[in-house]
Amino acid sequence: MTVETAVPVAIGLIGAGRIGTSHAGIIAERVPGARLAAVADPRPEAAQALADRYGARTFTDPIELINDAEIAAVVIAASSEAHADLIVAAAAAGKAIFCEKPMSLNLADADRALAAAENAAVILQVGFNRRFDRGFIAAHEAVTSGAIGSVQLMRSLTRDPGLTNPAAVPPWTIFLLTLIHDFDTLLWLNPAADPIEVYATADALVAPDFKDAGLLDTAVVVITFDNGARAVAEANFSAAYGYDVRGEVFGSKGMVTIGSGARSSAEVFTSSGRTTDTVRSDTELMRDAYTGEFVEFAAAIREGRQPSVTGVDARNALAIALACIESYQTYAPAAVRTTDEAVA
Amino acid sequence: MTVETAVPVAIGLIGAGRIGTSHAGIIAERVPGARLAAVADPRPEAAQALADRYGARTFTDPIELINDAEIAAVVIAASSEAHADLIVAAAAAGKAIFCEKPMSLNLADADRALAAAENAAVILQVGFNRRFDRGFIAAHEAVTSGAIGSVQLMRSLTRDPGLTNPAAVPPWTIFLLTLIHDFDTLLWLNPAADPIEVYATADALVAPDFKDAGLLDTAVVVITFDNGARAVAEANFSAAYGYDVRGEVFGSKGMVTIGSGARSSAEVFTSSGRTTDTVRSDTELMRDAYTGEFVEFAAAIREGRQPSVTGVDARNALAIALACIESYQTYAPAAVRTTDEAVA
Amino acid sequence: MTVETAVPVAIGLIGAGRIGTSHAGIIAERVPGARLAAVADPRPEAAQALADRYGARTFTDPIELINDAEIAAVVIAASSEAHADLIVAAAAAGKAIFCEKPMSLNLADADRALAAAENAAVILQVGFNRRFDRGFIAAHEAVTSGAIGSVQLMRSLTRDPGLTNPAAVPPWTIFLLTLIHDFDTLLWLNPAADPIEVYATADALVAPDFKDAGLLDTAVVVITFDNGARAVAEANFSAAYGYDVRGEVFGSKGMVTIGSGARSSAEVFTSSGRTTDTVRSDTELMRDAYTGEFVEFAAAIREGRQPSVTGVDARNALAIALACIESYQTYAPAAVRTTDEAVA
Amino acid sequence: MTVETAVPVAIGLIGAGRIGTSHAGIIAERVPGARLAAVADPRPEAAQALADRYGARTFTDPIELINDAEIAAVVIAASSEAHADLIVAAAAAGKAIFCEKPMSLNLADADRALAAAENAAVILQVGFNRRFDRGFIAAHEAVTSGAIGSVQLMRSLTRDPGLTNPAAVPPWTIFLLTLIHDFDTLLWLNPAADPIEVYATADALVAPDFKDAGLLDTAVVVITFDNGARAVAEANFSAAYGYDVRGEVFGSKGMVTIGSGARSSAEVFTSSGRTTDTVRSDTELMRDAYTGEFVEFAAAIREGRQPSVTGVDARNALAIALACIESYQTYAPAAVRTTDEAVA
Repeated sequence: MTVETAVPVAIGLIGAGRIGTSHAGIIAERVPGARLAAVADPRPEAAQALADRYGARTFTDPIELINDAEIAAVVIAASSEAHADLIVAAAAAGKAIFCEKPMSLNLADADRALAAAENAAVILQVGFNRRFDRGFIAAHEAVTSGAIGSVQLMRSLTRDPGLTNPAAVPPWTIFLLTLIHDFDTLLWLNPAADPIEVYATADALVAPDFKDAGLLDTAVVVITFDNGARAVAEANFSAAYGYDVRGEVFGSKGMVTIGSGARSSAEVFTSSGRTTDTVRSDTELMRDAYTGEFVEFAAAIREGRQPSVTGVDARNALAIALACIESYQTYAPAAVRTTDEAVA
Repeated sequence: MTVETAVPVAIGLIGAGRIGTSHAGIIAERVPGARLAAVADPRPEAAQALADRYGARTFTDPIELINDAEIAAVVIAASSEAHADLIVAAAAAGKAIFCEKPMSLNLADADRALAAAENAAVILQVGFNRRFDRGFIAAHEAVTSGAIGSVQLMRSLTRDPGLTNPAAVPPWTIFLLTLIHDFDTLLWLNPAADPIEVYATADALVAPDFKDAGLLDTAVVVITFDNGARAVAEANFSAAYGYDVRGEVFGSKGMVTIGSGARSSAEVFTSSGRTTDTVRSDTELMRDAYTGEFVEFAAAIREGRQPSVTGVDARNALAIALACIESYQTYAPAAVRTTDEAVA
Repeated sequence: MTVETAVPVAIGLIGAGRIGTSHAGIIAERVPGARLAAVADPRPEAAQALADRYGARTFTDPIELINDAEIAAVVIAASSEAHADLIVAAAAAGKAIFCEKPMSLNLADADRALAAAENAAVILQVGFNRRFDRGFIAAHEAVTSGAIGSVQLMRSLTRDPGLTNPAAVPPWTIFLLTLIHDFDTLLWLNPAADPIEVYATADALVAPDFKDAGLLDTAVVVITFDNGARAVAEANFSAAYGYDVRGEVFGSKGMVTIGSGARSSAEVFTSSGRTTDTVRSDTELMRDAYTGEFVEFAAAIREGRQPSVTGVDARNALAIALACIESYQTYAPAAVRTTDEAVA
Repeated sequence: MTVETAVPVAIGLIGAGRIGTSHAGIIAERVPGARLAAVADPRPEAAQALADRYGARTFTDPIELINDAEIAAVVIAASSEAHADLIVAAAAAGKAIFCEKPMSLNLADADRALAAAENAAVILQVGFNRRFDRGFIAAHEAVTSGAIGSVQLMRSLTRDPGLTNPAAVPPWTIFLLTLIHDFDTLLWLNPAADPIEVYATADALVAPDFKDAGLLDTAVVVITFDNGARAVAEANFSAAYGYDVRGEVFGSKGMVTIGSGARSSAEVFTSSGRTTDTVRSDTELMRDAYTGEFVEFAAAIREGRQPSVTGVDARNALAIALACIESYQTYAPAAVRTTDEAVA
């Protein structure tokens, strides 16, 4: 492996926001075989500040970054609605692609992105980082090894520490951006089955004043699979105790649970009882998982293969999120559909 | 408290089956102020065997036991459909009443039992034992003290260790007999709100061959409360790892969880990792809670007051179970109704 | 088992102090087959108050209680220095004996008590309640089943919640009354070996002003066994977070640990992290174990056999405590001796 | 911070053995601001293989590496007896120094190394990695914040997964190389006090056939501090369940414990109970801590300051290890001495 790591792959990052900044640090400091070569952001100062930290070049136009000869791979951390077009452009340029979730906001765009990547024969990975978390990996092994038998009941939840700006939350965020992580997890942990129906209920309990403007900050979803398994996904945008991601798979031979919430192994015992600090941010909780997904991306590029989590996975999770919107709107269970048209 | 405990209350037990046998042992051996005076069961040998163990008298006719002059209080552990009539008879005889859940199988019977007890001014307690479990008590305190803020998301689950005779399971058992515990728990842990709607999905995944005969062994229920809180209740009849009861209440200021599954504090570390034995039966998991509910019953009798968990609580939980049946049958969310008529 | 339990054994309790009061409640309310028939205490009001609670008779002279014809068994919860003489008297009267630890304060008295019980062929049980704790039982099984291999390192600790009256603590209490529990535990959990030497260091860190008067409130003891295993026992008289008893056995194939400190399964998550309440008193932590030891006592009487924890166990633990005193006084490791004489 | 990170510090590694290989990977792949520039090892192939992986140059003579103009800092991972001389040489060359523990094997060498570094005004950090572990950091904060009050009882332990070659273990390894981690931890977590005495007992229980050749694979040490606190350190060279590092500090206001042993948050529940996988190697358990110590080293160089763990810390821990050897040899407690001479 000497030569490949001696020439790390040159990565161009599109988007210098919160998650783009996190990705830049991970790529530059923790991923052998990758190098942050360029940052694109429409706000030149944002791009420059981030690029300076790691000696990268800057662009304001993502298309220029994509087409830059030095760039071998792009990491798309732009706004969700731009994802599909950027994938198409990157595929056209023959670049390896890592796209933050969601890959797109409807199935037609998902199909367009998938087709572009396939036709160009480029790598397309999507940012379902939980698949690289040690706990979720152990759970996946417990399922696929048969240790817990056939899957019957599942749970996955996401609770964010705090809703800072309710007015800025795009519609359907809780399904399309938040719970999409849980949908992917549930699909991954029940590999023998397909989802056939969802029931979704949601509300604005954290910031009720914004409900009329379309905010949903609390949701519960029940997914029915074709092997009879039922899964519950739930999300909330204001967990007082920190960033909380947990999962559970119950099967005919046993159960596996994931997520303790503990920040470290330290436990403090006082007259108030026994206390363990909790994890406060997703970048802390998922630090190793964020590293793992980019290590996988670099490895896939180096080895000329598709990564372990692909655009097809993104489409499958998206289909559930779209069914949730339909269920919420129709106030009834909704089928998980294979095309957008079916919804209309 | 000298005189009262010197003359413990004489209790007549109706039903010498599994739960009646457990109750007899608890009452006779662990409850100061109570005494098992008689056992009634249509099977004379069953009644005799149990009565002999504790020096109690026997009856085959429960009405005779109820009307026996020595008996001050009755514990109803007969089959579910007999509960309401036995309550009415015991109330007519002026006896204090402890009735296993469910108190009845429809709201009309529940109202009949409630009216009888109220008119006779007798004590009526229902066997929601989880309210006497130390973990659930601590959770209730966390909610009512305000420590976790306003309730937004809840969970309660029951998983039984093994379905021994699927053919013998009455229809709707999973809602009316099993999940009714969870419904009571959820109502108790969200005291500021009323349930308005349920969505229930269920299946026979443990014993699929019995589904056509009406067996449901796996269920997921979503309850929507009028304060916006959503609760998930789930049950399964075959947990390979033991008897599993857990709960969770998430609010605006925090969360409380209940249930570790551990049988003792011992943890064994070997080349296979760290292992803790799990609790295998409800009578072990809830041993202290079973004791607690009868201590409460004896105390309520002694102090001439209603117990902390009443027939009204039983009716409220039943209303949710009935809505689950409707939701399952109609394949849609169902309102939680206040009378049976509304269902038709 | 019908007849035996129908005529529960009549127990006479000697000592109506803190632990006597706890024992009375356990015997009267939780032990089938036992009945609190009498209470003896030199303070008539103390005896009366406790006896009234359970309808028992009273004595001021323990010898009268011992010789009372109704009394079949005595529970000795008097002051430690009286234990041996009371055992001798009870043995002479042919009564079954349960004696609180320590059985005596020197080996000569221990031998005298053992001989008296043996000559009279009466049951002699000593109050090492941890042997009846579910966690310690599971650990013992892990050791005796061979699951953790040959024992190499051990730990046992006792931390009391608060030293209320340092002036009233008799000399050597930390070794003779407190750590004697840990010594018995360590002997029980390393059954294949004998202790040969101890190193003890101790201090008054909680109440340093009382050190000159002989108080030791903090101690660490290392025991070397003849199979090479080393055990650490430690104690402290003021644990701010509650009553803390833990154990650990490490062997060639693994480890078992005992003691979580958690008061219930409830965990509260707030902005301060995840908190579990802790157990605050020994009578709460060891409630089931206290019950268990008296259930065993009643069973041994009924079945006419010696109980599972005997006077010989008490003598063995005492020998370690006495070696600790010698080690502390000589400021050097001390041999575990088989007679008092050897110390001089 | 743009310029500094743009020119990462060039590090020369001395020693391509197990720990040197681990350090190389950490420095090259996870530490921003550092760069593995060279590797020295007397075995040319070992140096070459490791250097090739990261594009570094090689040396067989560590002195040449030290004096190479490109090298700004050296990481000493050679055999323990060479540490002091290499520190002296690196100091003479004006290079920043990171030295694996132990810094030396006697106090005279420690003083020589300390004087050299001080005279040359170079940075000298020692590899006490636990100080960078999240759990131990939280414990340190619990102590230094006053949350647990004045320290009274402490514990630190190290259990290695397996003794592969007993014949190759140098004498006193258990004190000088293994427990020295625990000694540093205990000193760090009781910052208000100095150790005054130790009692050490040790044996060959894992590989008894090698005891005559000087092997000690199991040890228990009691340290007495001048504030009265007692600490227990223990080690064993063959933990069947993995790599186990734990700590505990008990004080007048509470306690903090460190170390769960869990490999991830996943818990598997089957008919065998609840199982969590355990950590199997130090490089996994301490992965983040190993990263943290080199991040600190790079930061200290960049900022021109001494690191948070220094040669003086190494000398203090060594003094305890040497007292353990004396205690073991004299079979009695031994004073913690300030010079080697005092021992004779």
